[in-house]
Amino acid sequence: MSTTDTAALLDALRQRLGPEGCVAGADIGPRYFTAYNEAPVCRPLAVLRPASIDDVSCALALCHRFGVGVVPQGGMTGLAGGALAGADEVVLALERFNGIEEIDAAAGTVTVRAGTVLQTLQQAVREVGFELGLDLGARGSCQIGGNLATNAGGNRAIRFGVARDQVLGLEAVLADGTVVGGLNKMLKNNAGYDLKQMFIGSEGTLGVITRAVLRLQPKLHSTHTCLCTVPDYAPVIELWRRTRASLSDVSSFELMWPDFYRYVTAHTPGLEIPFAADEVFYLLIECATTNPDAEVCAARFEACLGEWFEAGLIGDAVLAGSTRQAESLWRLREGLAIDALPNLINYDVSLPIGGIDGFVQQCRATLAGRWPAVQSVFFGHIGDSNLHIGVSLAELPPSGGHEVDALVYALVREAGGSVSAEHGIGRAKRDFLDYTRSPAEIDLMRTLKSALDPRGILNPGKLL
Amino acid sequence: MSTTDTAALLDALRQRLGPEGCVAGADIGPRYFTAYNEAPVCRPLAVLRPASIDDVSCALALCHRFGVGVVPQGGMTGLAGGALAGADEVVLALERFNGIEEIDAAAGTVTVRAGTVLQTLQQAVREVGFELGLDLGARGSCQIGGNLATNAGGNRAIRFGVARDQVLGLEAVLADGTVVGGLNKMLKNNAGYDLKQMFIGSEGTLGVITRAVLRLQPKLHSTHTCLCTVPDYAPVIELWRRTRASLSDVSSFELMWPDFYRYVTAHTPGLEIPFAADEVFYLLIECATTNPDAEVCAARFEACLGEWFEAGLIGDAVLAGSTRQAESLWRLREGLAIDALPNLINYDVSLPIGGIDGFVQQCRATLAGRWPAVQSVFFGHIGDSNLHIGVSLAELPPSGGHEVDALVYALVREAGGSVSAEHGIGRAKRDFLDYTRSPAEIDLMRTLKSALDPRGILNPGKLL
Repeated sequence: MSTTDTAALLDALRQRLGPEGCVAGADIGPRYFTAYNEAPVCRPLAVLRPASIDDVSCALALCHRFGVGVVPQGGMTGLAGGALAGADEVVLALERFNGIEEIDAAAGTVTVRAGTVLQTLQQAVREVGFELGLDLGARGSCQIGGNLATNAGGNRAIRFGVARDQVLGLEAVLADGTVVGGLNKMLKNNAGYDLKQMFIGSEGTLGVITRAVLRLQPKLHSTHTCLCTVPDYAPVIELWRRTRASLSDVSSFELMWPDFYRYVTAHTPGLEIPFAADEVFYLLIECATTNPDAEVCAARFEACLGEWFEAGLIGDAVLAGSTRQAESLWRLREGLAIDALPNLINYDVSLPIGGIDGFVQQCRATLAGRWPAVQSVFFGHIGDSNLHIGVSLAELPPSGGHEVDALVYALVREAGGSVSAEHGIGRAKRDFLDYTRSPAEIDLMRTLKSALDPRGILNPGKLL
Repeated sequence: MSTTDTAALLDALRQRLGPEGCVAGADIGPRYFTAYNEAPVCRPLAVLRPASIDDVSCALALCHRFGVGVVPQGGMTGLAGGALAGADEVVLALERFNGIEEIDAAAGTVTVRAGTVLQTLQQAVREVGFELGLDLGARGSCQIGGNLATNAGGNRAIRFGVARDQVLGLEAVLADGTVVGGLNKMLKNNAGYDLKQMFIGSEGTLGVITRAVLRLQPKLHSTHTCLCTVPDYAPVIELWRRTRASLSDVSSFELMWPDFYRYVTAHTPGLEIPFAADEVFYLLIECATTNPDAEVCAARFEACLGEWFEAGLIGDAVLAGSTRQAESLWRLREGLAIDALPNLINYDVSLPIGGIDGFVQQCRATLAGRWPAVQSVFFGHIGDSNLHIGVSLAELPPSGGHEVDALVYALVREAGGSVSAEHGIGRAKRDFLDYTRSPAEIDLMRTLKSALDPRGILNPGKLL
């Protein structure tokens, strides 16, 4: 774009959105060009901060006319570089278009604007006796629009599903500024194509999500957290089957491989260590119950543990007796200590549940075969097939992490898994999309992209 | 298409699919051109019965080349005319491509072919200790491919969701014969666009579903069924809130308005009538539990009923003491007696839960204002916002039912509802799609349709 065109576009945007709504040059704060836990990248052409749907629509129509790339931004907590803009692109930050428009207690729904912070929404629905099905670590910064655009997964997917599963209605703005949506509140609605599904998880490449209707869950009264040791992977699978059948309010089913447990217990100062590190699996199970009688729920959980012990499925077990103790078990599982490993590369993949341990063994051996001094740790939300891997090399190969990525993802491909369980593709995993999706699928994605965004202005270079 | 072209296409199809796979002319049985409970319509050009994915792909590629419309067919139990073909179109019946390919007990998934009858699948997964989340009245005839193509709802949507919610992976064949899919088994997979969502519920207009991976639920041990009277609609809503909170295994929450209850109890020979008809609501609640201890579950249900009675939310209540008694309560709710009403028109709509009774009152009054002798009955799956309406006129207006449709759907539009909760649009509701969806949404549906099926051969004239 010529300098004249750029000036004309910025003038038009400033006039439409006001000084609060269009920020350019040195006025752009680093938060708009810095990914979570990383160094700032280049400053975008401008940051647009629309305060209404009409603003979003006009901003997109203008950028569309000028053919300028638009990068939608939420809370900047993504881990795949999906919200970073180039120097010749504008950022569209939804932060000013926030707030809850309605909580419909009879329908059990909340209508919310894209810029609303997840935690704000969680608190608001709790105040009226409901619970939001979505929760993730970044709750204090991430925004609902970003959660939906990336189809966030999080901590409770086995209980309430992923972000997609919370959505009943959705409004989005297309590349040319057309507002499309759908603030539907009904669980059943088969009147034509379910267009909202296209926008959810498409990382802002097909439209910009502006509002959503989310379903609400009944209030949760108490949580019950247990850590136990499991002698082998087959009993882990059997425990998953039994947990689903006997503890219908299970909300987390998290597995730690011995290498992870050993490293975290050895490197977390002040951590309460329930069991000495051994060659076993460490399983954390949490139930979050709508039953107000916490004692009944705890007793049922204990009865299950007793039964599982009798059946030889578990060895040691500790059921947290207090919130503090539960938090301590979670601190172990979260394993922040691994962040200190040199040149750590984190992976977020998914695999068919039965094959996860086979994959782990193969991955560990293959990494050690290639880099004998590698340190690898494995853990994950096994109940929803999600595995996290930490890989640390004393020194990275000349290609940076790409060679490690290629090795890990090739094994994921072989195992019929996905190179991205919950973090999305963004910019970081674009090279590996075809490890999980077939050429016909990628062609069809391109067909969709061309149909909805023929000028290619929406989040260019992301996902595809 | 010229006669020569037709002959050439049929020759090519016969050669590719064999005599079992391509049936034409008088050999076509009436089941391929007769909708459920209706008279046969015109015989299609041919019925294709592919026995493999490759067959489906070749059949579509040939029809695409000749520009001939293809109407996918499942069990022919749809209620919107979505599977009826014109005289110049071919039927693509998936019945020969059936069977279960794999049950993965560790992942809790089943991989199934489109032509599999729902009940066959339900039985197969029960035999290995699981339950399918999907169930509907037509289970003995309907096929999984049709269930997914229409996003069937059914009896357990409040517990397990609609058909869409069961699907983890999907394979479909595009208009030109390209096979696209996706037999993903993971709950979390954010590698690119979730293409399966486009095909689910699109009534065969964007692609032909061939296989799917469905998630499985734990085995259900016992069901507990209760019918109670509720003095007003506000307590119905409060009961829905309390039921979700206290009975997390609730599987049905069904409401009958007094006109429905009065008619059905007066016109069903031999029906056991729990309570005399009165000006109250009749609420059927069913819990299907994974807990093997049926007595514990029944006691919990009874305790809730006691509490609700104390709070004045319910009047009379009967908790079925046997399977026979539960069936009798369901027979009442199913209300087959209304089928005998003259010129009966059935509606399947959805509305925000809080507003359903307001809608019912307005609809009843508006119908009676226009046709004083009208008989209308209202009932539905209230927990999932789905209302069914039966309207009977001694004599239909000259336009047939269209005038009644327009009146009912205009009220649905006003109330922010959907003209199709679970039956889809098909041919029957095409004129009313824009009562529920905006012009921008319908434009976007057309954009999608053109992108995926540029020659318009897939289920022409349906949905759009």
